[in-house]
Amino acid sequence: MKFETRYEQLRRRVDDYLRRFITEQKPVSVYRPIRYVLNSGGKRIRPVLTLLACEAVGGTTKDALHAAAGIEILHNFTLVHDDIMDNASSRRGRATVHTKWDDNVAILVGDELLALAYRALLRTTSERIQQIAKVFTEGVVEVCEGQGYDKEFETRNDVTVNDYLLMIRKKTGKMVSVAAEIGGLIGGGSQKEIRALRNYGYFVGRAFQLQDDLLDIVADEKKFGKAVGGDIVEGKRTVLLLEALRRARGRDRVCLQAVLQKRGVTKASIADVRGIYERTGVLESTRQRVVQDTARAQQAVLTLSPTPARAMLLWLTKILLHRTF
Amino acid sequence: MKFETRYEQLRRRVDDYLRRFITEQKPVSVYRPIRYVLNSGGKRIRPVLTLLACEAVGGTTKDALHAAAGIEILHNFTLVHDDIMDNASSRRGRATVHTKWDDNVAILVGDELLALAYRALLRTTSERIQQIAKVFTEGVVEVCEGQGYDKEFETRNDVTVNDYLLMIRKKTGKMVSVAAEIGGLIGGGSQKEIRALRNYGYFVGRAFQLQDDLLDIVADEKKFGKAVGGDIVEGKRTVLLLEALRRARGRDRVCLQAVLQKRGVTKASIADVRGIYERTGVLESTRQRVVQDTARAQQAVLTLSPTPARAMLLWLTKILLHRTF
Repeated sequence: MKFETRYEQLRRRVDDYLRRFITEQKPVSVYRPIRYVLNSGGKRIRPVLTLLACEAVGGTTKDALHAAAGIEILHNFTLVHDDIMDNASSRRGRATVHTKWDDNVAILVGDELLALAYRALLRTTSERIQQIAKVFTEGVVEVCEGQGYDKEFETRNDVTVNDYLLMIRKKTGKMVSVAAEIGGLIGGGSQKEIRALRNYGYFVGRAFQLQDDLLDIVADEKKFGKAVGGDIVEGKRTVLLLEALRRARGRDRVCLQAVLQKRGVTKASIADVRGIYERTGVLESTRQRVVQDTARAQQAVLTLSPTPARAMLLWLTKILLHRTF
Repeated sequence: MKFETRYEQLRRRVDDYLRRFITEQKPVSVYRPIRYVLNSGGKRIRPVLTLLACEAVGGTTKDALHAAAGIEILHNFTLVHDDIMDNASSRRGRATVHTKWDDNVAILVGDELLALAYRALLRTTSERIQQIAKVFTEGVVEVCEGQGYDKEFETRNDVTVNDYLLMIRKKTGKMVSVAAEIGGLIGGGSQKEIRALRNYGYFVGRAFQLQDDLLDIVADEKKFGKAVGGDIVEGKRTVLLLEALRRARGRDRVCLQAVLQKRGVTKASIADVRGIYERTGVLESTRQRVVQDTARAQQAVLTLSPTPARAMLLWLTKILLHRTF
């Protein structure tokens, strides 16, 4: 079977699970937005990783479906609350919960999504359920820490590349890692296999985030789905900006400082900043980071026995590396 | 040992646990407010119930300490988020998190508290850990539903007493019930014992909430810690207002409708409304409900074997019934 077809199959299993998962109707102020969020599509990368990781160590996708759904619901909880904090008005082409309803609804809906994530996860049948729930919980803690750093960095002018890497490790990398690790735990993986899956997830997650930073400036606007250079206009501390700040001197540095402090940066400045990113070599070095992380993810997964699931996990790293979406 | 002394001992064990529980320092924007919340004191009724319930079926308080702390942390998560939604500026005599910091911090702090609640709970050693975590999770779901109803009711004029009882069962009663049930599960209680503890918690929780409604209008202002009649000025749908609305006719009814719709109700109106509550007999009938729920809680707990812990659980119902705080 083609990788794309199999991915689509797995994604649909997650979507089906999520559609059937919520049977409650009342209070409508809570359950209507919850359905809205869970039926909003999305790539479902995390839950697919959980399913594949489980298979890759000898389990079945069925064994891991509850946990996979739990991980996707958890991810949606973070989106709903982050969108409030970030004042984001749209997500996946639709109005965010706090925009379509209000902040109070969005707070409550996020809270309940977190509880529902545990409900799904805890339906898993496994002797390791306590460990699985602990791994999941530490993932939630780190996601919150990551978001905390992200908000702190918005108003700090001394953020380093290492600060940034710590932040994305917690905010993005950790849960991708947890998704793969939990799949491995449910599938009955050995300690060595679990470690390989955890590392795989960690590097895939980081490569994904760094690629996101790159795509903001080099992507095809139509495919990417958001305006190119948005991070620059918003003065977002991306790996590109932070690394370029470290390297740039003279007028380039002054220009980047203006981006950092959001002083008069408009769409017109994007080309200038892109020029600095090219001159300082940060586009190239970030591409290298992505390539390196992808290679590390592949190395990790290659320590597992050869199976169709392992082949899928390898394929995924390439897809993420070459994505233009 | 005197009941008061023993309660104080248990309360302090929970406080000590909570003080030591958080070892992280960064990001400070998250962990400073978390410490602020967890060190804010409070009666710690729920965790004490968990400890006593565990003892009452033959376990030790030590076995249940992780879970007890988890239940208290969960309670604090609900307070932090509810305070945002309710625009509450103070809690336990101190500024609320969203007032002292801001809404974003309070959202994130609440989220992480929920994760930390699971972290504590999942340290419990018990063969029933999966069931315990499921009971806990269903508690969280219902707390969210209860808060959802509470917010919906604020703008509805057709709320019935039964709607109200459903809301407080979910928002308050359920977690008190879960606190006792989880103690019983950890202590190795039989199905019959677990059911008794669950019922005990449910009736204690409801009596507590109804008593709260009563205290708003009949309490000693200094002891109660908030202004008498605050619910009336805010047009809060309490059992008193809803039941009085059902019973009142003529001018009394018009007056209560004004309270419901917050039309020109000031502190001066409190005495009038209290007069209506007396005339319609809702003060008396609510007192009766509290007495009845307390009796039911006692009946439930009396089905357990006689132990010092059972005696404490009985004593607690009387304390809650006669509290003026």
